[in-house]
Amino acid sequence: MRDPVLLPPLLRALNGEPLATPPVWLMRQAGRYLAEYRAVRASAGDFLDLCHSPDKAAEVTLQPIRRYGFDAAILFSDILVVPDSLGQKVTFAEGEGPRLTPIRTSEDLAVLSKIGFQDKVRTVWRTVSLLREALDPNVALIGFAGSPWTVATYMVEGRGSKDYIAVKKMAYGDPGLFARLIEILSDATFDYLIGQVDAGAQVLQLFDSWAGVLPEDQFRRWVIEPTKALVQRLKAARPGIKIIGFPKGAGVLAEDYANETGVDGISLDSSQKLSWAVETLSPRFTLQGNLDPILLVSGGPALDRAVDHILEVTKGVPFIFNLGHGIVPETPPENVAALMKRIRK
Amino acid sequence: MRDPVLLPPLLRALNGEPLATPPVWLMRQAGRYLAEYRAVRASAGDFLDLCHSPDKAAEVTLQPIRRYGFDAAILFSDILVVPDSLGQKVTFAEGEGPRLTPIRTSEDLAVLSKIGFQDKVRTVWRTVSLLREALDPNVALIGFAGSPWTVATYMVEGRGSKDYIAVKKMAYGDPGLFARLIEILSDATFDYLIGQVDAGAQVLQLFDSWAGVLPEDQFRRWVIEPTKALVQRLKAARPGIKIIGFPKGAGVLAEDYANETGVDGISLDSSQKLSWAVETLSPRFTLQGNLDPILLVSGGPALDRAVDHILEVTKGVPFIFNLGHGIVPETPPENVAALMKRIRK
Repeated sequence: MRDPVLLPPLLRALNGEPLATPPVWLMRQAGRYLAEYRAVRASAGDFLDLCHSPDKAAEVTLQPIRRYGFDAAILFSDILVVPDSLGQKVTFAEGEGPRLTPIRTSEDLAVLSKIGFQDKVRTVWRTVSLLREALDPNVALIGFAGSPWTVATYMVEGRGSKDYIAVKKMAYGDPGLFARLIEILSDATFDYLIGQVDAGAQVLQLFDSWAGVLPEDQFRRWVIEPTKALVQRLKAARPGIKIIGFPKGAGVLAEDYANETGVDGISLDSSQKLSWAVETLSPRFTLQGNLDPILLVSGGPALDRAVDHILEVTKGVPFIFNLGHGIVPETPPENVAALMKRIRK
Repeated sequence: MRDPVLLPPLLRALNGEPLATPPVWLMRQAGRYLAEYRAVRASAGDFLDLCHSPDKAAEVTLQPIRRYGFDAAILFSDILVVPDSLGQKVTFAEGEGPRLTPIRTSEDLAVLSKIGFQDKVRTVWRTVSLLREALDPNVALIGFAGSPWTVATYMVEGRGSKDYIAVKKMAYGDPGLFARLIEILSDATFDYLIGQVDAGAQVLQLFDSWAGVLPEDQFRRWVIEPTKALVQRLKAARPGIKIIGFPKGAGVLAEDYANETGVDGISLDSSQKLSWAVETLSPRFTLQGNLDPILLVSGGPALDRAVDHILEVTKGVPFIFNLGHGIVPETPPENVAALMKRIRK
C-alpha cells in the first residue's frame, strides 16, 4: 500500500527522484480506443462541446485511471481550445482533423480578442476542479496547453499541414506579424494555465507537436524563446509548479530546449535515442516517454522487449513512463493492461 | 575557369576535401517550380510515364543545370519506380500523392517478381546514359533510390501515412514477413543502382524519408542494417562509388547511421542541428544540406541569413550545399538564382 504522506510518484519523479518503479501515464490515455470514452463522446455534441462540458470531460479523464490505475490523470481537452476561445473559428469534422479560418494578415489577427476568453475557458477550469476532488491523492493531476509555436501553426495553416508553408512564410517573411500572434497566444496560454493550476493542476505539460519542423535559428526564436518566457512567468506566478515540455521531433535540439527553457521534465518522442537523453539530460531533467504507440497496437514480444529496454536504460534516473506520442484509436485495450503489468511487475 | 583535369567539385567534397565554395545542388531541383518542367510534364502521360521516357526525363534533369549551373545533376525519377517494376500496382493521382495496392500478407508478397524487373528499369538506365553524354565533366551525375525501409512503408501502407500503423504492425508484429519484403527490395535496389553506376552515375543517394519514425532498436534493424548491407554490396561490386545517405528525421541517430552504414556523405534535414553534425561527423563524413526549402519560398533577409549561417558553420569541413528536403512547387525561381549568387559570391 502506498503511503499517503508521500508526494504522488509523478511529483517525486519531477522532483528529481529516481523510482524503482517509474510512475506511468500515457498521452491521449482518455480516447477513442476505450469503449467507455466512445459512449460519452457519442452523447456529447461536437468535440469542442465535450471539452467544454465539465462533467463529461471529467468523466472521460477518469475512465483510464479507473481501468488501469495510471499515476496521473491528464485533463481531457484540446490545444485548440485556446484559439477557439480567442475568437478564431475552429471546427472538428469527424475523422478529418481540425479546420480553422486561417490567420494570414494583420487584419486576420484582429479577429482575436481576450475579451470573453476567461469566460470561455472557465468550463475547462471547472473540469480541473472536479478532477481534483475526484482523484485519489496519489494520482497527480496534469493540466496542459499547446506551445505557442504549435498552436500558431494550426492558426495560420487552418489545418494540419505537410510542409508548413503558410506558417513558415509568415514566421520567416514577416517575423514582426508572427511575433504578435505568438505574443497574443503566449498571454492567453499563461492565463489559461494559471487557471488550471489554481483549480488543482499540479503539473503542466506544454505540447509542441511541430517543434521538429524548424531549423535551428527559427527553433530558438519560435520554440525555445516563447517557451522559456512562458515557463518563467508561470513559475514566478505559481512557485513550485512543475512543467514538462514536449518538443516533438526536436532531435539534437532537445538538449538546447531542456537547458534553456527552464522546464522540469522533458517528454521524448519515439524516435529520440533514449540512452543519449539519459547521458545528456539526466539527472538535471526528469525524462518522460518514449514507447512507440504503434507497439501498443501490435503488442506481443516486440512490445515486451521495448518496455524492458526503456526500463533498463532509465534505471537510476528520474523517469516517467509514457508513450512517444498519443495512443491511437486502433489500440487494443488489453495491450495497455499488459503494458501496465509489465512496468509494475 | 575550372580546371577540367580536377574531379568535379561534388566528388572532391565526397573525397573529404573542404572547398572554399562548396558544391551545390538541390533536392527536387527538377520540378514543378520551373515552367520548363511543367511544359515537359504536360506533354508526358502519367508521372511514371515521364520517369520511363529517357529523352524527357533527361531533359527535365538538365533544365535546372542550364538555368542555375548546379554542381550536380540528379537523375529525374521516383523512388516508387522500384515497387512498380517489381509488379506492384503504383499510380500517381495529380496533387494526391502515390497510391499502391498495399502488401499486407505473405500472399500479397507473391505479387512481387524480379522477372521483367531489369527490362522495366532499363529506361531509367538509358536516361542516365543520355545524361552522362550531355553533361559537362565538371557536373557530377547522381543516381538514386529509396532506402528499403522508406520504399517498404509505401508498399505496405499503400500511400503516404501519418501514423505508419500498417507498416509498423508488420515490422513489429511479423518481422519475418517484413524481413522478406526488405530482402526483395534490397536485391532489386542493388540491381537498379548497379545499372545506374554502369550507365554513368558517379554518386548514389539513398533517400530514407521516413527513417525518423522508428524507435532506436527498430531503426537499427530496418534502417541501419539494410542500408549497411546495400552499401557494402554496392562498394564491393563497384569500388570507388560514392554514396550519400539521407536518413530524414533521424535526429541523434544520424550519428549511428553515419558510423555504421559505410556511407561517404550524410544529408541532413532542416531540423538537424548543423553545428552538432560538424562536431560529431566531420571530417570523417561529408555533410550535405540543410537549408529549409520554405526559406526558398519566402526569400529575403531570412534566406540570406540562413545561407550565411550554413556557410559559416561548415567552413573548413567537407560539405555539399543543399536543402533539408525537396524544393516545393511554390518556390519562386528567382529565389533559387539569389541563393546561387549568395553561395558563390
